[in-house]
Amino acid sequence: MLILLSLDSPREDIDAIKGKIIHNKCQPHEIPGETNLAIGITGPTHKLIEDEFRFMNSVVEVVRVSKKYKLVSRQMKKSDTIIKTKYGNIGGKELTIIAGPCSVESRDQIFRIAEDLSNLGVKFLRGGAYKPRSSPYAFRGLKEEGLRLLDDVKREFGLGIVTEVLSPETIPLVEEVADIIQIGARNMQNFILLDEVGKTSTPILLKRGLSATVEDLLLSAEYILAQGNFDVILCERGIRTFETSTRNTLDLNAVPVIKKHSHLPIMVDPSHGIGIRDKVAPMALAGIAAGADGVIIEVHHDPDSALSDGAQTITPDQMSIILNKLKAMAPIVERELN
Amino acid sequence: MLILLSLDSPREDIDAIKGKIIHNKCQPHEIPGETNLAIGITGPTHKLIEDEFRFMNSVVEVVRVSKKYKLVSRQMKKSDTIIKTKYGNIGGKELTIIAGPCSVESRDQIFRIAEDLSNLGVKFLRGGAYKPRSSPYAFRGLKEEGLRLLDDVKREFGLGIVTEVLSPETIPLVEEVADIIQIGARNMQNFILLDEVGKTSTPILLKRGLSATVEDLLLSAEYILAQGNFDVILCERGIRTFETSTRNTLDLNAVPVIKKHSHLPIMVDPSHGIGIRDKVAPMALAGIAAGADGVIIEVHHDPDSALSDGAQTITPDQMSIILNKLKAMAPIVERELN
Amino acid sequence: MLILLSLDSPREDIDAIKGKIIHNKCQPHEIPGETNLAIGITGPTHKLIEDEFRFMNSVVEVVRVSKKYKLVSRQMKKSDTIIKTKYGNIGGKELTIIAGPCSVESRDQIFRIAEDLSNLGVKFLRGGAYKPRSSPYAFRGLKEEGLRLLDDVKREFGLGIVTEVLSPETIPLVEEVADIIQIGARNMQNFILLDEVGKTSTPILLKRGLSATVEDLLLSAEYILAQGNFDVILCERGIRTFETSTRNTLDLNAVPVIKKHSHLPIMVDPSHGIGIRDKVAPMALAGIAAGADGVIIEVHHDPDSALSDGAQTITPDQMSIILNKLKAMAPIVERELN
Amino acid sequence: MLILLSLDSPREDIDAIKGKIIHNKCQPHEIPGETNLAIGITGPTHKLIEDEFRFMNSVVEVVRVSKKYKLVSRQMKKSDTIIKTKYGNIGGKELTIIAGPCSVESRDQIFRIAEDLSNLGVKFLRGGAYKPRSSPYAFRGLKEEGLRLLDDVKREFGLGIVTEVLSPETIPLVEEVADIIQIGARNMQNFILLDEVGKTSTPILLKRGLSATVEDLLLSAEYILAQGNFDVILCERGIRTFETSTRNTLDLNAVPVIKKHSHLPIMVDPSHGIGIRDKVAPMALAGIAAGADGVIIEVHHDPDSALSDGAQTITPDQMSIILNKLKAMAPIVERELN
Repeated sequence: MLILLSLDSPREDIDAIKGKIIHNKCQPHEIPGETNLAIGITGPTHKLIEDEFRFMNSVVEVVRVSKKYKLVSRQMKKSDTIIKTKYGNIGGKELTIIAGPCSVESRDQIFRIAEDLSNLGVKFLRGGAYKPRSSPYAFRGLKEEGLRLLDDVKREFGLGIVTEVLSPETIPLVEEVADIIQIGARNMQNFILLDEVGKTSTPILLKRGLSATVEDLLLSAEYILAQGNFDVILCERGIRTFETSTRNTLDLNAVPVIKKHSHLPIMVDPSHGIGIRDKVAPMALAGIAAGADGVIIEVHHDPDSALSDGAQTITPDQMSIILNKLKAMAPIVERELN
Repeated sequence: MLILLSLDSPREDIDAIKGKIIHNKCQPHEIPGETNLAIGITGPTHKLIEDEFRFMNSVVEVVRVSKKYKLVSRQMKKSDTIIKTKYGNIGGKELTIIAGPCSVESRDQIFRIAEDLSNLGVKFLRGGAYKPRSSPYAFRGLKEEGLRLLDDVKREFGLGIVTEVLSPETIPLVEEVADIIQIGARNMQNFILLDEVGKTSTPILLKRGLSATVEDLLLSAEYILAQGNFDVILCERGIRTFETSTRNTLDLNAVPVIKKHSHLPIMVDPSHGIGIRDKVAPMALAGIAAGADGVIIEVHHDPDSALSDGAQTITPDQMSIILNKLKAMAPIVERELN
Repeated sequence: MLILLSLDSPREDIDAIKGKIIHNKCQPHEIPGETNLAIGITGPTHKLIEDEFRFMNSVVEVVRVSKKYKLVSRQMKKSDTIIKTKYGNIGGKELTIIAGPCSVESRDQIFRIAEDLSNLGVKFLRGGAYKPRSSPYAFRGLKEEGLRLLDDVKREFGLGIVTEVLSPETIPLVEEVADIIQIGARNMQNFILLDEVGKTSTPILLKRGLSATVEDLLLSAEYILAQGNFDVILCERGIRTFETSTRNTLDLNAVPVIKKHSHLPIMVDPSHGIGIRDKVAPMALAGIAAGADGVIIEVHHDPDSALSDGAQTITPDQMSIILNKLKAMAPIVERELN
Repeated sequence: MLILLSLDSPREDIDAIKGKIIHNKCQPHEIPGETNLAIGITGPTHKLIEDEFRFMNSVVEVVRVSKKYKLVSRQMKKSDTIIKTKYGNIGGKELTIIAGPCSVESRDQIFRIAEDLSNLGVKFLRGGAYKPRSSPYAFRGLKEEGLRLLDDVKREFGLGIVTEVLSPETIPLVEEVADIIQIGARNMQNFILLDEVGKTSTPILLKRGLSATVEDLLLSAEYILAQGNFDVILCERGIRTFETSTRNTLDLNAVPVIKKHSHLPIMVDPSHGIGIRDKVAPMALAGIAAGADGVIIEVHHDPDSALSDGAQTITPDQMSIILNKLKAMAPIVERELN
């Protein structure tokens, strides 16, 4: 980090800044220049907060040269992280497809969808047992019963299970069933929860919050890695903008940007990202074209009767068409999909 | 709620929609019109999700006539909610001032600030024992030790304590000390936490999330009221926009909008809202001018050495000037501040 | 349009609303319902402004059933508009590629780039003679001299010319050279200029403004069609959001949304949309995957010495790689690129 | 400006950067540091574009120490600019009130409103003769006839006239009548128009664009000052955010931020900023509390029949109440209103 001061800064201002740097266990280095006095900082600078310095007396500008995150960064690990699971690798040459209903609603529903997806060659089944909902009056999931159904369907069809956890207390229950634990967008900055999933050894699918910057997302991933769990899959699922013609604005720019700054795999969720059923297919293709490692798609055998998110959910037949297009496109972006 | 269909909608589409309405325990009523067939809906329509209908076949438009929230709405309760505490009422004619440091850092620090604020006539002291931080490497609070210091300072100076809770497990501990429990912006949609604080009988200060609409904020408050705790204070603290010259964009428009739709008190946090120390005073005044019931301001005896949020924190002397201006302004907006 | 009133609305409020509807040359129709009185409106309702009614006494909600735009809408014209030019069709099966430098800088520069692009099979050359710049101190284009160079390069290489117009006075000059006239993002709501290019018979490339909704963009296109020029190509080039890791957020969701609502061709500009050189290729692919009719890409033989927009400009060699990928991808999205 | 390079940058990269600096008539200065090589730049650095350097090889970061604008900055002129007009000063101790209808609709309308406002002591009358409208089918103003009516009303009541100009051709006509020429939000980056009003000697009211940053607004003002017209009044009127409960988000943070960076007066337009009639009063008060030099308010004797913007327009009686509150508040913020 570099702090620029005006050339005529009084000594007491300079000393206050240097004192604060030392207080944070870093070392300050004065570098006099032509128009400014610069203070270069070495040491564990990722722990420093720019804003803590920005408004101190005499400060003209604070420049972060290194990033605030460390473990998730490309500088730390140059090669792409590949997460190995029984159901396939995530983050390598092979594209990952996760599909399934928004919520587990009943044995009949989840078995029927799982069978269809299994026949299509999909290897990971998503389905929420615990559902965060913006209204307290909406369906909030079958909870433990939902987990049990996911466990049954897993045994029956040999699919990897991706399901969301909402609170630290339920992690042990979820972990028994889940092959990948999902942290939803609304919990991306629930740091207590991030700490706790960081202590598990199950891969984590971390969804970007509606108003989170790429840096925020990477810092939240850093929480998980800092606790020892390095198997984090990032997921772009749409940000909040002024545009009202779609539910959210799927930010595909984030895909190449994240690939540049981090070694972690990044998937795209076009179902939540755009929120309109017949736009899911083009946005899934666009996500892979942009460089994503896979897609997460909401599929239901009868979307209009789904208890949640029906508007953005597609049928297994529509999923089949998307898979065929993705297979054709994979080699163009140096990928594989079998 | 009203669903508009095209005039030539096939009977099966109409029946599917009516079936879904009945499935949700509401009643559909067909109203043929000139250009559209409308289906009016009666019953507990606040439980319906517009999006679940919007993309069904033949649907042209879905119109929500009543709001998704109920208990927090002006329709439910016409008069302003006034929350009574030992340290003064919140939401009535008297303006509420909450002040104090971002974090409790040490006995010396919190006692010194509390003494200064107490001398200024401030009745509520804020101070974080548990701190959510976007980086895992930042200071995360003194935790239980911080709560103990808050308890001590409360006994010493007779100040009401406002402090944040981050997880359900710590609610009992926090509740012992806090006169008002704060739910921070990042936890505004941590629904598990909302449910749990809804079961307490302590007033809750609910901060608006960075990307939450006014409707989202009111729905989150609805979670708390739905559990039986009606003492909720809303708090505007800045939203995320494209503007980068301030940390957030304090959305003062939200104040009169919330006053129109809800009976709950609304406070403004200009410290987080703008994030720059010398802009706190004008934005505090502006918040009260816009109709807020009070302000929350970060105050520290030595802002530059504060362990968090120093950039937006003011000194007790600066706080004193703000208080004098607020006192002068109160009668103009039909308020009092003593 | 449908206006919902409360059931107990006084007659004078109802009459005021009906009077305003008639004043706007539309017809009101009272439709009593169970919970609301609805007033249906027929006639030229695209001329009505919802907000003019929304806050009148007794009004609960205003619902626009038909769109504010007309000529640009799918309802008006079901089949895709195909714009025929000497250099190929835009909007049909064939993908359109427009490439070239941000600004025309010199005879040598524009000839060199044109030759490279011509060798790659590109048929449209872009290059600004008049440049809108946010700073008055930045390079604002070679103006008439730039148009002359574009004319020369067009004769030499037989490329279609795409260049921007900034003011009504220069339309005749620009029209002499341009095969497609560009209206830049900053002028998307310069309605005087829209009127005037609407009177020409040259195809118009209309770029979406940084904060324009899809509806705003379509209404601006409506201005041009309303004057008689139906050859409008829409262009997504990035919107302004809170994300700062890219210059703008290329909103690819807009592509399928526009395809649904309008018959006009839509292109994508990944250079401006993301603003970082090595992210142009994935976003160009993603744009076509999302369903766009073509891409506009900034190409310069020596990007680092370009007088404007160098950061997002690629070399002819990088362009060649993108073209090859687009050719491979075209059939997957039922397109062609020769 | 300061460019940071990695320590191991090859000599050719360094030379390319230095060459580009010199090409832009500035001087580079190498400053070796511990973790980076810095290149400091002196000379007319406000003409440099950061992005042109940011993505060159070996560049780690580009830091702008001085601002891109110059003439509008506080550094250039420390004291507040006070614009003197026959109808009062703008930018000094005295608050400025501009009021009137969105559009001039008829002789009767504008005379009636002018008389009411004149009786209230308002000194500036606003009213659009040329109206930019997002739909081509909306009322676009009485044009020259509107200017004539403004001229008549000015003679009759001695009010200063504030009216908008849309294109360079009409500047001479508008200038004959207007005491302050308005540049609307949609034309904030119509640089041709900015250049031309910069050549007049009439004060300019420059409204912030819907998605313009504070820096963009100041750069647009810089265009006008660069042409010789130093009498520019800035105006905050709402930005576009994700919040849909108000038409725009009035960004009052911008007021103290602009006051810090620029010497120009800044007014607030709460009518456009919030777009809802009964929210205009609190937001007008809040604007002055935040430090604005005045407010612009839409007033109409019969808002519901107004041809444009009726929803946000108040009556003269409501205006009278606002004026009384502003008079009471003025001394608290060290202002006057007579």
